[in-house]
Amino acid sequence: MTTRQATPTIEFWYEFGSSYSYLSTMCIESLAHERGVQVVWQPFLLGPIFKELGWDNSPFVLNPLKGQYMWRDLERRAARYGLPFKRPTTFPRASTLPMHVAAYAAHHGHGWLPTFSRRVMQQNFVEDLDISQPMHVLRALDDLVASPQAVLEDALSNTHKPLLRQQTMRAKALGIFGAPTFMVGHEMFWGDDRLDDAMAFANALPVGSL
Amino acid sequence: MTTRQATPTIEFWYEFGSSYSYLSTMCIESLAHERGVQVVWQPFLLGPIFKELGWDNSPFVLNPLKGQYMWRDLERRAARYGLPFKRPTTFPRASTLPMHVAAYAAHHGHGWLPTFSRRVMQQNFVEDLDISQPMHVLRALDDLVASPQAVLEDALSNTHKPLLRQQTMRAKALGIFGAPTFMVGHEMFWGDDRLDDAMAFANALPVGSL
Repeated sequence: MTTRQATPTIEFWYEFGSSYSYLSTMCIESLAHERGVQVVWQPFLLGPIFKELGWDNSPFVLNPLKGQYMWRDLERRAARYGLPFKRPTTFPRASTLPMHVAAYAAHHGHGWLPTFSRRVMQQNFVEDLDISQPMHVLRALDDLVASPQAVLEDALSNTHKPLLRQQTMRAKALGIFGAPTFMVGHEMFWGDDRLDDAMAFANALPVGSL
Repeated sequence: MTTRQATPTIEFWYEFGSSYSYLSTMCIESLAHERGVQVVWQPFLLGPIFKELGWDNSPFVLNPLKGQYMWRDLERRAARYGLPFKRPTTFPRASTLPMHVAAYAAHHGHGWLPTFSRRVMQQNFVEDLDISQPMHVLRALDDLVASPQAVLEDALSNTHKPLLRQQTMRAKALGIFGAPTFMVGHEMFWGDDRLDDAMAFANALPVGSL
């Protein structure tokens, strides 16, 4: 039987290049606060997961009908959340550089990860900026850490660079096939539109150890 | 500008083999009644649409991780709606025979189409029956029409058999890539989890001609 820790917890698996991850990244902390749920931020790369499934690109690019629909759906969902949204001129954007920083922050339990993540998402899905440019990653770290440049270098060091790959392998081991994905113990919820369900599920579990 | 008729109307594009269509088929009329929305039932075949996308089977079969997740998600969603659900031992089930009857009913505006559709879905996703068997199609027509046998023969006649193909071509022309899909004028909503949004959208449109 699945049980939970004293504080209901959900793992949030996300990727800066993923359009629906944008919605969840912007909203999850405030929703979690309302629900008394704790969020564990779990950045990972979608590309290697898609490759395993035999796709060399986003399904929204490989299937243009679905892609066209997704942009309209995203626009409607963003409006409903009251979130700004501008369709990026490049999709999907290479996200590896900021993802390395996110994996680094997740590994060390740095409290600035949610704010950093929201800023990167804002760059990609509102400001239409190339998030693989170091200048934008540094800007997203600004005032969150003593030295953005030192953090970026540390995240890309031989010690820390493998963290992102490890996160992606963990995602694969969990059977994750898309983003965002929410894990509550072994229970999977896929898609921003399942975020509420995931939180309700976490809250309904009896207290115990996962 | 998209406007609506005096009674807000949504087109419900569905397929008896589609798992998420099961949820919408069972719930749409009662939800529509609450919202004052009129439903136009639009049966179509998913197979030819998937073939155009390069898939020779359901994406839930081609991508086993997604398929496994779908069954768990469907189970949770059914429980939430208070609907019975039993995972079919065959998926996707050949649905052409009852789909011909549905296309025939839709063409003639027969009022028994929603009840017939719910019964076929019940057979597939609760009773685990092979819905391509004439005996089950006849049972689904029982007490809805004077002669189930005559209706089945008429639906399969040279006059009416092309109706299903025509419906599927209409779906394709609308850019439909999955089921269920809800159309409100030119606005598309894909997936059972967008049914509420589609109804709200229909209700919010200014009155006029579509």
